[in-house]
Formats: sequence, C-alpha cells, structure tokens
Amino acid sequence: MQQVFWSHILAPDEQQLELGDSYYQHLIRVLHFQEKSQFWLVDAQQQTFLATVEQITTKNFVVRLQAKSRRQTELPVQVTVACALSKKDKVELIAQKATELGATKMIFFESRYSIMKWKKNVQAKKIARLQEIVTAAAAQSQRLFIPEVSYFNWAQLLDYRADYRLVAYEEAAKQGEIAQLAQTLQQVPPQASLICLFGPEGGFNVEEIAQLRQNKYTSCGLGPRILRAETAPLYFLSALSYQIELNKEY
Amino acid sequence: MQQVFWSHILAPDEQQLELGDSYYQHLIRVLHFQEKSQFWLVDAQQQTFLATVEQITTKNFVVRLQAKSRRQTELPVQVTVACALSKKDKVELIAQKATELGATKMIFFESRYSIMKWKKNVQAKKIARLQEIVTAAAAQSQRLFIPEVSYFNWAQLLDYRADYRLVAYEEAAKQGEIAQLAQTLQQVPPQASLICLFGPEGGFNVEEIAQLRQNKYTSCGLGPRILRAETAPLYFLSALSYQIELNKEY
Repeated sequence: MQQVFWSHILAPDEQQLELGDSYYQHLIRVLHFQEKSQFWLVDAQQQTFLATVEQITTKNFVVRLQAKSRRQTELPVQVTVACALSKKDKVELIAQKATELGATKMIFFESRYSIMKWKKNVQAKKIARLQEIVTAAAAQSQRLFIPEVSYFNWAQLLDYRADYRLVAYEEAAKQGEIAQLAQTLQQVPPQASLICLFGPEGGFNVEEIAQLRQNKYTSCGLGPRILRAETAPLYFLSALSYQIELNKEY
Repeated sequence: MQQVFWSHILAPDEQQLELGDSYYQHLIRVLHFQEKSQFWLVDAQQQTFLATVEQITTKNFVVRLQAKSRRQTELPVQVTVACALSKKDKVELIAQKATELGATKMIFFESRYSIMKWKKNVQAKKIARLQEIVTAAAAQSQRLFIPEVSYFNWAQLLDYRADYRLVAYEEAAKQGEIAQLAQTLQQVPPQASLICLFGPEGGFNVEEIAQLRQNKYTSCGLGPRILRAETAPLYFLSALSYQIELNKEY
C-alpha cells in the first residue's frame, strides 16, 4: 500500500485530516486515488495511520484516519553512511539504496581523490535534490523515518561522534583485516550509533587513512573483491541488517 | 591495476603473447597503454599473469608474461541469482552489481507480474548485452571468473539443481520467517551450490510461491523493509559474502 509522510505530529486519536499541495498532486492527480482509496500516513513521531479518502475537491481532499500499528521497519541502531562525492548518478543511487537498506543519516564529502567537487554555491541545491530522492525511497520502502542528508567537510567528519567509527578501506582486505567488520557488527548493542566512511573511485589517500586512524576510526575490509564506490555502502548496510535484524540476537 | 580475461588456457610458464582486436582497442587506443605498461591477464583456468607491454604495432601488441599468484577473489560456494525481468536499467544494474558481489551465475526469467517481457527474437541479444556488462564488471572487480548469464523459463527454474534453493519472498518477512536466510547461510559448506530467486516489482504471485515450495524452494525474508526488485539480490549476495567470507568459519 502507498505510504506518505506527514511532517507534523498527530494526536493518536486524530480522526480527520485535510491534504493539499504535493499530496493532492501525487495521490489524486498522478495515482488517481478516489473516494475510499486507502494509504498509510506516517507522522513525525513514527505513528502510523490508515488513511481513507472521504471527499475530493479541486485542490484538496479529506481523509479519515485510523491509528494502526505496523511492524517495525527501522534498524535498532543508528547508522550513518558517509560517502565521498562521485558522479551524480552514483550519488543518487547511493541515496536511494541506502534509504531502502535502513540508513539513519547520509553524509557526502569531498576527499583527495574525488573526481567530483561541489562548489559552495551548489551544495545546498544538490543536498535538497538528494533529500527528495531519500524521502521518496523512505515512503516506498515503508520506513517510519526519513533519513537526513548532509554535506560535510573533512574536519567535520574527523570530529563526528558515534559509538563505533569505521572506514571501509580496500587495503584492509589486502592486509588480511577481513574479520574487522564482523567483529564490530557482532558487538554493537541496540540503540548504539555507528558511522562508516566510504572513499571515492580512486580510494582514500594514505594520509587520509592515517588521519582517520588518529581520530579513532577503525579500518575494515568488505570482502576480497574490488567493489565500486557506490556498491560498498550497500554491502555494508546489507551486512549490518543481516547481522542485526536476521541473526536475531536482539 | 587493469585486468583483462584471456579465453584460452595458457601454460604456467608461457612467456609471451600477442594481442589484437578488442584488447588493442581497449588497452592501447582507449587507455593509451605504452611500452612497459602493466596489467593483469587472467586465463580460462583462473591462472593470473602479470603482463608487461613490450612492443606495439598498428594493430597488435606483444606482452611479456609472468605467472603470479594473487589473493583469492572468488566465493567458496557456487551462487546463482535468478531475477524476474524488470526494466532495462534495473536488469543491467543487477548484472553489474551481482558480478561485483561474487555471483557465479545469473538467470533472468519472466514471471506472472513482470512488467517487462522479452520476445523470443530479442532474448539472445539481451543476454549477450548483459554478458558484456558482466565481463567488464568481472575484470573491474578483479574476479578470476566471468559469471554466466542465461534466460530461463519457469519450468527450467523449477527444475534447477542446487544444494540449497531459496526464494526471496516479501510475505515471508511479514509472517516472521526472518531467520530463514541466516539459518541457511550458516550451514552452507564450502563448494556447496545455492540458488536464490527474486520476484519482479509486483512480487511473486501466490501460486508461483506455492509451485516453488512444492519444488523444494524455501522462502526467506530479507529484513523488515520493502526492497526494490533490483536491491534484493544485492542484499542477498552481500549477506552471503559477509557470512561466508568475513565471518571466517572457512
């Protein structure tokens, strides 16, 4: 069933709501919803309501709401993926897929070997476009929460606070640090926060890795094959979900 | 370092090789390789050679070969991903990413709710195009082996032989069969063969699932979030690699 997010908090016994603007455009004009059509509405506090269309005018429509709990679709940990800039289609692919795979936050940053740079005057626009992709993907994958997308500089990344801080590093796999990711994910308790950094196509520079290690980032390999820049975060999030949600130690 | 595949078997002490055609086009014309440039050449028996360009003419070039072992980049199990047809860009994304993530074989098939159909007269052409994508991705991710791409009909899928046969089924997650994937992957021994089936955007039809179960396919969930058709096989392969290659029970 279709899902939309409502950016305010509703009372749990809220009965009716009037929707317009982008909701009208999306549900009535594009998807041709009619009276009695139903969809999920998720409010800003992750409360879920079954919404039934009651009345449609030329610009708005009224829905009847019924609070209804749904299975939990959020990871029990807070996970941030931070990816070096790459081409537009790759960045957009990461944003969409990382949302489906449960990321809590996404950060994009420029690193030494990034082939793409975002000039200061376009950063806000680029992030806004990615935030739109993430919002659509969050609704589609029936998440209860819209991940936040940000642009960080290197110093902000070094300072980022999280209980577990990892950096995916191809050389780690070559040096045999293959067990680091599994060791970390196996010990992450519920509610913990993690961040994992992913380099650009050309990988991280050795100085960047040294700086990250000085700042208590642990490097980890993602298996023996060379993964493209946009594939690595998807591998990481899938492995995290597998370890935490399917292995069921929680 | 660049890698290319050689479709014949070389003697381990082979010293020299003359290359032309697509090798010339790719390495000399596109990548501007010169004398002394080096690349990996992997033969049809997964033997790896360091190749050094010695002499370049207008149509061919000669390389000096040095047999050199490299770390193992192939999964210790044989894994086939079988995906229902979807739009061209999604099918191509699956082909590329499943190769990076270690798939041994890829099968595409038409299912009840597939929005795409491949007419008989285009199937061979479509598969050949996907095979090209897979070959490029295999070289890029430094695999020792080029996965094979095929088109199957439903009866062929039902009959497919593998030690473990799974079907990713969204309803399985809803019904609480969340542990099935982890249970299966934890018991797969080295050299075993697995197949996992993935439905189209609209999912499998209940009759299709019933038929698969009658034919000893086990349904498994891939976590609580709704994954798009092209994301599900990538989740599966990442989880498999994590369980088998990073958890290091082998």
